[in-house]
Amino acid sequence: MTIRLDEGAGEQMHALVERLYPLCRSITGDGVRATLDIVGEYIPLRVHEVPTGTQVLDWTVPQEWNIRDAYVADSAGNRVIDFAASSLHVLGYSVPVSRTMPLAELRDHLHTLPDQPALVPYRTSYYKPAWGFCLAQETLDALPDGEYEVCVDSTLADGHLTYAEHVVPGQVPDEVIVSCHVCHPSLANDNLAGIAVATFLARALAETTPYYTYRFIFAPGTVGAITWLARNKERVDQIKHGLVLACAGDSGQLTYKQSRRGDAEIDRVLQHVLKASERPHRVTEFTPYGYDERQYCSPGFNLGVGSLSRTPYAEYPEYHTSGDNPDFVFPAAMADTLAVCREAFAVLDRNRRYLNLSPYGEPQLGRRGLYDALGGRSDTKEAQLAMLWVLNLSDGEHSLLDVAERSGLPFDTVAAAADALRGAGLIKA
Amino acid sequence: MTIRLDEGAGEQMHALVERLYPLCRSITGDGVRATLDIVGEYIPLRVHEVPTGTQVLDWTVPQEWNIRDAYVADSAGNRVIDFAASSLHVLGYSVPVSRTMPLAELRDHLHTLPDQPALVPYRTSYYKPAWGFCLAQETLDALPDGEYEVCVDSTLADGHLTYAEHVVPGQVPDEVIVSCHVCHPSLANDNLAGIAVATFLARALAETTPYYTYRFIFAPGTVGAITWLARNKERVDQIKHGLVLACAGDSGQLTYKQSRRGDAEIDRVLQHVLKASERPHRVTEFTPYGYDERQYCSPGFNLGVGSLSRTPYAEYPEYHTSGDNPDFVFPAAMADTLAVCREAFAVLDRNRRYLNLSPYGEPQLGRRGLYDALGGRSDTKEAQLAMLWVLNLSDGEHSLLDVAERSGLPFDTVAAAADALRGAGLIKA
Amino acid sequence: MTIRLDEGAGEQMHALVERLYPLCRSITGDGVRATLDIVGEYIPLRVHEVPTGTQVLDWTVPQEWNIRDAYVADSAGNRVIDFAASSLHVLGYSVPVSRTMPLAELRDHLHTLPDQPALVPYRTSYYKPAWGFCLAQETLDALPDGEYEVCVDSTLADGHLTYAEHVVPGQVPDEVIVSCHVCHPSLANDNLAGIAVATFLARALAETTPYYTYRFIFAPGTVGAITWLARNKERVDQIKHGLVLACAGDSGQLTYKQSRRGDAEIDRVLQHVLKASERPHRVTEFTPYGYDERQYCSPGFNLGVGSLSRTPYAEYPEYHTSGDNPDFVFPAAMADTLAVCREAFAVLDRNRRYLNLSPYGEPQLGRRGLYDALGGRSDTKEAQLAMLWVLNLSDGEHSLLDVAERSGLPFDTVAAAADALRGAGLIKA
Repeated sequence: MTIRLDEGAGEQMHALVERLYPLCRSITGDGVRATLDIVGEYIPLRVHEVPTGTQVLDWTVPQEWNIRDAYVADSAGNRVIDFAASSLHVLGYSVPVSRTMPLAELRDHLHTLPDQPALVPYRTSYYKPAWGFCLAQETLDALPDGEYEVCVDSTLADGHLTYAEHVVPGQVPDEVIVSCHVCHPSLANDNLAGIAVATFLARALAETTPYYTYRFIFAPGTVGAITWLARNKERVDQIKHGLVLACAGDSGQLTYKQSRRGDAEIDRVLQHVLKASERPHRVTEFTPYGYDERQYCSPGFNLGVGSLSRTPYAEYPEYHTSGDNPDFVFPAAMADTLAVCREAFAVLDRNRRYLNLSPYGEPQLGRRGLYDALGGRSDTKEAQLAMLWVLNLSDGEHSLLDVAERSGLPFDTVAAAADALRGAGLIKA
Repeated sequence: MTIRLDEGAGEQMHALVERLYPLCRSITGDGVRATLDIVGEYIPLRVHEVPTGTQVLDWTVPQEWNIRDAYVADSAGNRVIDFAASSLHVLGYSVPVSRTMPLAELRDHLHTLPDQPALVPYRTSYYKPAWGFCLAQETLDALPDGEYEVCVDSTLADGHLTYAEHVVPGQVPDEVIVSCHVCHPSLANDNLAGIAVATFLARALAETTPYYTYRFIFAPGTVGAITWLARNKERVDQIKHGLVLACAGDSGQLTYKQSRRGDAEIDRVLQHVLKASERPHRVTEFTPYGYDERQYCSPGFNLGVGSLSRTPYAEYPEYHTSGDNPDFVFPAAMADTLAVCREAFAVLDRNRRYLNLSPYGEPQLGRRGLYDALGGRSDTKEAQLAMLWVLNLSDGEHSLLDVAERSGLPFDTVAAAADALRGAGLIKA
Repeated sequence: MTIRLDEGAGEQMHALVERLYPLCRSITGDGVRATLDIVGEYIPLRVHEVPTGTQVLDWTVPQEWNIRDAYVADSAGNRVIDFAASSLHVLGYSVPVSRTMPLAELRDHLHTLPDQPALVPYRTSYYKPAWGFCLAQETLDALPDGEYEVCVDSTLADGHLTYAEHVVPGQVPDEVIVSCHVCHPSLANDNLAGIAVATFLARALAETTPYYTYRFIFAPGTVGAITWLARNKERVDQIKHGLVLACAGDSGQLTYKQSRRGDAEIDRVLQHVLKASERPHRVTEFTPYGYDERQYCSPGFNLGVGSLSRTPYAEYPEYHTSGDNPDFVFPAAMADTLAVCREAFAVLDRNRRYLNLSPYGEPQLGRRGLYDALGGRSDTKEAQLAMLWVLNLSDGEHSLLDVAERSGLPFDTVAAAADALRGAGLIKA
């Protein structure tokens, strides 16, 4: 693991993960609201409540689920499975139940991971009414036959789906979206680390005056992103780039998953920054599964939205189990993810196509104080090279990132050269 | 050699090769008619007779050549070269001759292969009047000097060029052509094996109701294909794909030669099937020599017609010699060639571009019974992945083959997913 | 070093380099004129004189610089640095000076190469008034403290910028330009070797009747090329291809630097010829520094102009030092550069797109005496293959170079096939 910058932010992000961890989030309900309340302590949020039954694209906002308690108790009254110990223990969207039944009957409602016997799985049943418990195989194996009291004290009723936005205003209304899902219960990497990185990224951007307007979306997975898209169809043309953040805190190397387009500017920027920074990393092609890039990159929208993770979706054994807890994510890893986001947005924000206003032959840089006056020396300077490259490629077709990649010069050097040339009136955006 | 499927068909195809082998085929004449009569026992054929002198594109249908006997006999009357032993012994299109001459004079009319002294070469002189004999160098070396009686009892006169077609009707008038040459005399791999595979492929297709209309063309090489094209210029726009079958029975690995376009659908399908089946194989670029792909891929037509062989044109030592006899071709090899054709046409026939009718976000598959209801499990199922891929790429630009290649999923799985989605009204062709 | 052809020309080119070497060239002045006078003994030149102050694109023609003498003498009157010994000793465009000063003060005007202590550097100050001397670090180290007499007897005054052209008329007005810079003083590889190769290339072309009109430009670097472009803006549309010749005589392998377009015809031709000739060589992408390709390939012009060198710009230690003298360039190397230019222009000059006038099926070559009459032989002849390839690819999209590259046949064979087919009326340009 290569870690850069922002070590202090890393500790703060880990503390945020730990605060959010115990809450029982789902695609609706008070767990999401409590999560957004805490995030709202770090950055101002605009919270949206969308009523049950609202048609959102091909979907309908479901009933709201809230849960107060859930347990399985043995005949002595001991809670052998207890929601209070971990929100994972209850099947997400479990309908209420209060019964006594023999273990043999109860087994149909119990979910374990036989291959990972010490871990509790994460399971949900959003769209098919059901109740159930998740537990370690080891725990199940230790349960004696007999009668058990089963209680799920939940409510599944009309209510709202909740999501939130935070906007960092830019110089232009064109937007970059950063999206992360807030629907997973006690799972740290997936996606409390993503939420934490997004939160601190928003704080960092707010300290600058970015070119683009940056919109952060905290929404439940799938139906939440679909709801946001349904309510922002008018805005979609304004969204120029985007990034989904997920699994942002484990100790694995960074993975950038391309947008559906594959060659969107966000794709090129992330790949450039990861490569230029010499971090070990991986770039993968778009697939229509994973996180909410699925929705942003559905063919009707086809947005330039990629996804940044450390170890991706479903590729680590702790994925969707109780093993994905705060010990599984690291301050330094989150700091590194944050640093890459900041570096990438610094490039994206300055990446522009310019037009050389003096395209016939080279303009005389020396006259304008832009060129070393003493000729004939065999050492050419990087800054001067960058100016020549920007002038040569500023034909309206090539961006500064194109210039950086073709010249092999650092993007910062190229952007500085463009600034100097624009200052001298030699190029225009 | 990797052999699959249809072993029974392999034996039957080999039997067909053996029946056809003794006939003296040429670009015209009764040898072609006899060949088509036998093929007609397997599949119904429509036979066309085109008169000598007919203008066909840049060519003219030549005179018809028929031969009854041909030999060289020594002074004792023994036939030292005898057409009755092999149709290869006579130079194709030999004009009649009946003379006695010394060996020294006869030598100018004898063709051998000095580097392959045991083999008889195959030679023709279609467009320059000549007569001659082909024999093994060993035979020639053993001939004593002296006078020899030379007889070619042939006729070269106005008549017809003969070719045949077999059509397997499809759901649409768009056509796939399968073409093989029927002009080579006693040569097994080139092209009796191709004729046999084409014949059994036609039988296999007739058992289905294919999407495309499949047209099988049995015609003499070059001038036959040119004649067919000249008489079917109106139909050419209807020909969407095609395959030339040649050298289909030797023990070498399969070779697919791309169409002139290089990226025609037939090219992609054959390459996909060969690769997906994990057969050892080779793909070569188009060249303007070989078999009748030369004509179908001439720049004016530029059809999407590739060519499937085992060891290709001119690349085996037995090529165009008496070594290319029924022992040189194998039932299992022909069965394997047939199997690949069937697999390829099964893909081609189902390969369609669909349009996602719910392209904004993912449609809710669960509501339609298309998705596993219990979420959160880390094992995603191939069929569900295939549905997500089809939905994501069904933008009118991508075919199911594109989906299969990009997703890495089997074409069959992708096609089944498309069927399910079409059944649910989520996509349309 | 692989050397071909024209060994005699090599010696003559080296003799030309030796004659030109002592002259003190700069971007203006009598050194350029004397150089062009000598070149004019080999090929007729049209010399242009452009007055100081003339606006040329973004530049202005500078004052003309002439120098008669320059030296630093010690208190005993011994010249310790003497322009008469080498034109490199004076900073190019030095303003006049005539003073006595202590070594300490003189040092600010002395240029050395501490890392190459035996070599004299080449330095200029075209656009910032200055005077100075260049000398070996060893020489400087040996100078005792004390007073020195400093003299630069130069004139910097309104006058002219001088350049010359030589035109080899072609069959069409479309032009190929060959450009080399004539502004460097006593430096052999950079660019007297380039001047010599260009001169002998012009002589060789004049012995033929080329298709294109070839225009040779001998002009000072940067401002000279800019001046030429400014005065020939109308002609630019006529320039179809071009080559900058520089560093054409050292012992390194050939290097072709692509035009800005990267896939211009000149790029493909040079790469083809270098590869087909099996010379060791290198191909590099365009960069906006080097020689006057910078101006020809500025985005407003974006001409198909590449650059041919042996060891390129700034990549050899002797670059821009007294080490780049006539011993550093070799007759055989210049002959080799010349040979490649001739081979490349022989391809370029014949590279045309043809249209097959009989594109439906193959035309019957035999009828036209273009094809071997006896069929069935497995050895196909290169010339016949070339005809089939030209016919197949002559769809107006493919050039003969495309045919050569796709077929793997030598360009000469392909061009001869095209000639035969054109003669038979089967293709047209």
